[in-house]
Amino acid sequence: MSNEAQPARSLPTHAPMDQFARQGDELLIGGMPLSRLAARVGRTPFYAYDRSLLSQRVAELRAALPSGLKLHYAMKANPMPAVVCHMAGLVDGIDVASAGELRVALDSGADPAEISFAGPGKRHEELAQAVAAGILINIESFREVSLLAEITRDSGYRARVAVRVNPDFELKHSGMKMGGGPKQFGVDAEQVPELLAAIGRAELDFEGFHLFSGSQSLKPEAIVDAQCQSYALALRLAEHAPSPVRFLNLGGGFGIPYFPGEQRLDLASIGANLAQIQREAREALPQAELVIELGRYLVGEAGIYVARVLDRKVSRGQVYLVTDGGLHHHLSASGNFGQVIRKNYPVAIGNRLEAPVESGVSVVGPLCTPLDLLGDKMNLNEAQPGDLVVIYQSGAYGHTASPQAFLGHEAALEVLV
Amino acid sequence: MSNEAQPARSLPTHAPMDQFARQGDELLIGGMPLSRLAARVGRTPFYAYDRSLLSQRVAELRAALPSGLKLHYAMKANPMPAVVCHMAGLVDGIDVASAGELRVALDSGADPAEISFAGPGKRHEELAQAVAAGILINIESFREVSLLAEITRDSGYRARVAVRVNPDFELKHSGMKMGGGPKQFGVDAEQVPELLAAIGRAELDFEGFHLFSGSQSLKPEAIVDAQCQSYALALRLAEHAPSPVRFLNLGGGFGIPYFPGEQRLDLASIGANLAQIQREAREALPQAELVIELGRYLVGEAGIYVARVLDRKVSRGQVYLVTDGGLHHHLSASGNFGQVIRKNYPVAIGNRLEAPVESGVSVVGPLCTPLDLLGDKMNLNEAQPGDLVVIYQSGAYGHTASPQAFLGHEAALEVLV
Repeated sequence: MSNEAQPARSLPTHAPMDQFARQGDELLIGGMPLSRLAARVGRTPFYAYDRSLLSQRVAELRAALPSGLKLHYAMKANPMPAVVCHMAGLVDGIDVASAGELRVALDSGADPAEISFAGPGKRHEELAQAVAAGILINIESFREVSLLAEITRDSGYRARVAVRVNPDFELKHSGMKMGGGPKQFGVDAEQVPELLAAIGRAELDFEGFHLFSGSQSLKPEAIVDAQCQSYALALRLAEHAPSPVRFLNLGGGFGIPYFPGEQRLDLASIGANLAQIQREAREALPQAELVIELGRYLVGEAGIYVARVLDRKVSRGQVYLVTDGGLHHHLSASGNFGQVIRKNYPVAIGNRLEAPVESGVSVVGPLCTPLDLLGDKMNLNEAQPGDLVVIYQSGAYGHTASPQAFLGHEAALEVLV
Repeated sequence: MSNEAQPARSLPTHAPMDQFARQGDELLIGGMPLSRLAARVGRTPFYAYDRSLLSQRVAELRAALPSGLKLHYAMKANPMPAVVCHMAGLVDGIDVASAGELRVALDSGADPAEISFAGPGKRHEELAQAVAAGILINIESFREVSLLAEITRDSGYRARVAVRVNPDFELKHSGMKMGGGPKQFGVDAEQVPELLAAIGRAELDFEGFHLFSGSQSLKPEAIVDAQCQSYALALRLAEHAPSPVRFLNLGGGFGIPYFPGEQRLDLASIGANLAQIQREAREALPQAELVIELGRYLVGEAGIYVARVLDRKVSRGQVYLVTDGGLHHHLSASGNFGQVIRKNYPVAIGNRLEAPVESGVSVVGPLCTPLDLLGDKMNLNEAQPGDLVVIYQSGAYGHTASPQAFLGHEAALEVLV
């Protein structure tokens, strides 16, 4: 029986972090005990991503979703080149959000035909690079049509485009709503017919639609509803398209559990619904390839952040584990990235999994700010200086979503194990 | 008469951003029109800091505070090397928060005798570097006493130390409370006598105390109160010191106005109070040098962040200026760094100051997230693609407090003008 931290029965708890195996006191990452991995990396803090978990997640998704459905990786979630290389070998396409990400995607060996580029503020140079690369550009404004026509004219390379639509609905219960009402993303559904006409006149190579209504949802019924509405909207818009729809990106929005009380997403109803959409689309949009675009869901659970305990302090009865890692490496875990109320990520002492549990322990970083809080009054296995604090669910929006240069500390390392 | 944005009379407004001069449509930075500065920098986005404003702020402080009081710059607020060099020539000392900052401080030519180092999680190597540099180390735990004794023994360089105290009170009405109750910062006041005894036994070179009860306060009476309490606490603790107090850092906490309704801090009562403390200290702690440590207050108002408008979109009646800058460069302005409720920083169209004002305009960045919001429904001079959006009050906790690598965009440049 494990001595692992068990919060009081009445409080909501974190979903079990059982994706990583254990060996005695040690968490295993890619089969390697955490202490040994830390010795191999050579310094803390670091992020570690487990390649077998990445592969496993894609395989699970393939099993739950209808065959023939294309799976894209939105690399903004984790753009570490080794991760993108690994994912490029597993998924059907890569979605990039900047010319910087495009370079990494191309380096990974991903087929340019299966790379797409979205973003509400693409610079002229970025569009020119995308056209030269031959990737699909998700158009998000009338201005981009003019710019792409100019780039096509000047370069002789014809722009491949889809239209990113700001739908007239939103993904309910999602962490971030990205459709419905006024938005900077895409083109309002009601303006799309006019935009499609402009694309036709500009003689851009029209391929289809991109609809993205929200992200980080843990409610299958909300995702099913958004996908049905997205498909119905795409059908209506297809009537105005200058050529048949060959590409239909229904977005993503699949969430992972971060906070107490959150459970893993059940894919069954989502898979069944996508199979139904796929059947209908075979009739209605016979040339269309259906795409689901996922970032966080593919990589988030496969990664941990590891920091070493520098000091154990007791201040007025409160135990603090002071670590060498903090918000500068992992902003989200500190509660400072989009959260309104700070909640704890799942945390463990990754080399003391069998030590007695101590309650009410806070984990902080080295920064001179009270924001530098990685775990607030948690139940954790007893830890001393030298021990390794692990923050789970750190494979997405961790390293690059953090202010690594803050207060002059070194950036965290990243390893794919 | 200026056509500048004026929110409806009944709503709170931003403090006037009159620290920068203007010339027609153009904001002047160090005397240079913004459009020309942007051409000189060569690309957007960038941060620009005005060296004359830095000098002016220090001069104003010197005039308001009693002579003989030492003024330190907490470089975490803005560690750009050119800024630190400039500040090192103006202030009496530099406060660093890491070994990385220490290198920049030493490069700037600051006298090691006047550099101090605080931080709740100092690594062994950092402490060793600090001892070798001969700077003052603010001890924050019992562990640091043992480590410093060991480093002194091994290196032969004697550690210079002060004690960072976690006071038994807090800075009221402050943006961040850093004292009172349990804290990871410093050593609880009630444990300090025991710590002082340990310092004496370890034969470290004791110099004094560092008290820091909070930051970003706009209430002079709260700052006065905290300084009085800090001084009284230091007096009590001095009775337990192994040698006379030569250094007494009373902290900072001086705020600047960021959000509508906030006004600039009135220094008169703070200056008078510090003069009174100084008179008392001449009797009670005759060898003590009194220090005020300021970061944000010295540099925050001297800096702007500049991004270029890429697109102007109207979505369901809402005007969006889509810029090439965003939360990846300026996390605080997006509301994602310690703010509970997002509020607008002061924003201007820095090359269209005389254009007609348009209301309800939102300024967003290029990222695929609704968090990438730099200005929400503001009154701004009319802007078109190519124009320059300015975010004021960006001289502190801007560049290094932001996730510059997010979504693969290039980092913002920084210039000191």
